[in-house]
Amino acid sequence: MKVNSSRLREELAELATFSSHPPPAVTRLVFSDEDLRARNWLAEKCLAAGLSTRFDAVGNFFARWEGSHPGLSPLATGSHTDAIPNAGMFDGVVGVLGGLEAIRVLRESGFQPRHPVELIMFTSEEPTRFGIGCLGSRLMSGSLAPDRADALVDLEGRPLAEWRSSAGYQGDLAGVRISPGAYAAFVELHIEQGPLLERGGFDIGVVEKIAAPAALRVEFTGEGGHAGAVLMPDRHDAGLAAAEAALALEKLVRESGSPDGVGTTGLVKLFPNAINSIPCRAVLEMDIRDTHLSSRDVVTTGILEAVTAIADRRGVAVKTEWINVDPPAECDLRLVGIIGQAAEGWKSLRMVSRAYHDSLFMARLAPTAMIFIPCRNGWSHRPDEFSSPEQIACGVEVLARTLAAADASFE
Amino acid sequence: MKVNSSRLREELAELATFSSHPPPAVTRLVFSDEDLRARNWLAEKCLAAGLSTRFDAVGNFFARWEGSHPGLSPLATGSHTDAIPNAGMFDGVVGVLGGLEAIRVLRESGFQPRHPVELIMFTSEEPTRFGIGCLGSRLMSGSLAPDRADALVDLEGRPLAEWRSSAGYQGDLAGVRISPGAYAAFVELHIEQGPLLERGGFDIGVVEKIAAPAALRVEFTGEGGHAGAVLMPDRHDAGLAAAEAALALEKLVRESGSPDGVGTTGLVKLFPNAINSIPCRAVLEMDIRDTHLSSRDVVTTGILEAVTAIADRRGVAVKTEWINVDPPAECDLRLVGIIGQAAEGWKSLRMVSRAYHDSLFMARLAPTAMIFIPCRNGWSHRPDEFSSPEQIACGVEVLARTLAAADASFE
Repeated sequence: MKVNSSRLREELAELATFSSHPPPAVTRLVFSDEDLRARNWLAEKCLAAGLSTRFDAVGNFFARWEGSHPGLSPLATGSHTDAIPNAGMFDGVVGVLGGLEAIRVLRESGFQPRHPVELIMFTSEEPTRFGIGCLGSRLMSGSLAPDRADALVDLEGRPLAEWRSSAGYQGDLAGVRISPGAYAAFVELHIEQGPLLERGGFDIGVVEKIAAPAALRVEFTGEGGHAGAVLMPDRHDAGLAAAEAALALEKLVRESGSPDGVGTTGLVKLFPNAINSIPCRAVLEMDIRDTHLSSRDVVTTGILEAVTAIADRRGVAVKTEWINVDPPAECDLRLVGIIGQAAEGWKSLRMVSRAYHDSLFMARLAPTAMIFIPCRNGWSHRPDEFSSPEQIACGVEVLARTLAAADASFE
Repeated sequence: MKVNSSRLREELAELATFSSHPPPAVTRLVFSDEDLRARNWLAEKCLAAGLSTRFDAVGNFFARWEGSHPGLSPLATGSHTDAIPNAGMFDGVVGVLGGLEAIRVLRESGFQPRHPVELIMFTSEEPTRFGIGCLGSRLMSGSLAPDRADALVDLEGRPLAEWRSSAGYQGDLAGVRISPGAYAAFVELHIEQGPLLERGGFDIGVVEKIAAPAALRVEFTGEGGHAGAVLMPDRHDAGLAAAEAALALEKLVRESGSPDGVGTTGLVKLFPNAINSIPCRAVLEMDIRDTHLSSRDVVTTGILEAVTAIADRRGVAVKTEWINVDPPAECDLRLVGIIGQAAEGWKSLRMVSRAYHDSLFMARLAPTAMIFIPCRNGWSHRPDEFSSPEQIACGVEVLARTLAAADASFE
């Protein structure tokens, strides 16, 4: 089995050009023109590789290689290709194009799987457009009700139902759901998005557990007015309440004592957001994660108390909404063992994933595990995100070996 | 002299419909489609009133009523019609349509001025598009260099030179400048944008002084990264630096001890502004004002020290830029006296303007003063901004009397 590293490198570079920001930045919001063109491009690559393709009602993409025992549930691999604003070219994409390459390598080596093998590209792993991550895999796993999903709106108030329909994905979202057992196993290849593999000189990370993510939306509503005319004691500035809330989250996480606990206020929108106007409204989106549910719960409870106290003190109103509060996922022990064996000959590390992935939801449907490869300085979600062609080829080879071994091991 | 209050009320309502937000909100950014249509509408109203009209190279609009002594410098009145996002229908507009109404009232009463009388609508009093307020009057007064003005960019990087050219305003910006003495006097009618007139039961404010405004842009550049993967001690979060800076400004102003001192962080932009990404960059725009230059200077000095200390502590870079640091303006004593006499029969208050206006710059060219009318709760820059038709008619009548008296008093 030999990975065609130059073919893969060219495809990675080509996919990166579907972006609304110039290189090296990649911005590819789900259902944007760039995303839709990238989806068509990917489907053509899969057809050219001899796979049959389909999209479901939310735009999840499936490319299938038939097995010798078509009655068996498929093995699957995949990830996402959407990208947040001003991101890099590897997050998610390595698991999609690397998954396609792994399938091609297996075919070219003459391997004939018993199970069908599917490559999946999940819709909207990134929460940028609709405020909730893993939209496609959430729906597949039944973790998000179809009517709630269709009613999700972007920041301009346009609902998912409209977006997916104008993107050409029709039909009832209920049809997206997959039964547990419908897949024999799922493996996701991904860049680490953290510094541990690089720091320790590891080639491969074998993920045993995925951290528990929670996302909170906070909206403060105060009193607007002219920045020159309303005196300081008369103010109810929603922007300053937001500033205090962001700092309160940082303090809570730092004081939680959990080394894996992180809290981020990644999104802030002020209204009207004009220099000479007191902000009347502020929307924050906060991301809170930990590998330990108990210490995460300390933060999720604490931030609600903190924003209430801030709002009371400043005389502004506050509304909070949990966008998602997901439990952690355990990877499948047998699959973890298979990946460990497939990585023999390289230096590998058993680890947790602090980032969440579509695997968090696929784990509810099927035995699931993840293969990590190093990325420079642990950087991700930025234009200088980087894994070398050699590091990627290593991950693809371990993935191909894992699929072959899983084909023999799983029914 | 009798103000036609219903005509004026209809025109105010009609102008409010040129908005990119639905009523009662008004959003009319300079050179937007709404603004360009509003400009044409205004020019037609002025032509219908028998005035001759012209636009200069930055889009300042002039409507002229010839005097019996055309050799005399014109008397002028006016204000602006642009509006920040989600604003109201009176700020600026009362001074433009009220100015037109004052001229019509004088004409209809049979009054014949010695001086030409000009109505001026100034371009971009609001800083929303280009980050700097009073663009048109700054250029007229020579307070902003034409080449610096043409290079001003909006948030998408499009320069003023392109905006004004595609709006149809051609020619060298140097031609916008007016010589001191070119106007015999300037009077601006405006809503107070503060609560003092209403609280005291006054009909008219006679402005003696305009507060000194300063505008600061602060940009923090830290390290981006994935919100799940970068541990708290490794972070250099530009968004949290911004949060601290906004709170530092509030603290400085409150501790300055000046009752008229105000400081506002009205604009915040995070990059990439996605929930699962650590902000790598944050841009803030701060507005700092005081009627006392010395206490304002304490704040402007203190905020630079504060943002530097915040940046050092968080390991992020900081850049600061003063968008404008303007001195206060004194109104002309003779003109203030004329307004006071014109307001006899109503309850009037001598006062300072804490908001800045085009008068701040016109005061560098000509004897200048302002007439304020009350607005409900002092609210402005919000959709529920309100002055009653009676309050507006009173302001217009005082303006018309002022123009008539100034015509006799000034050469």
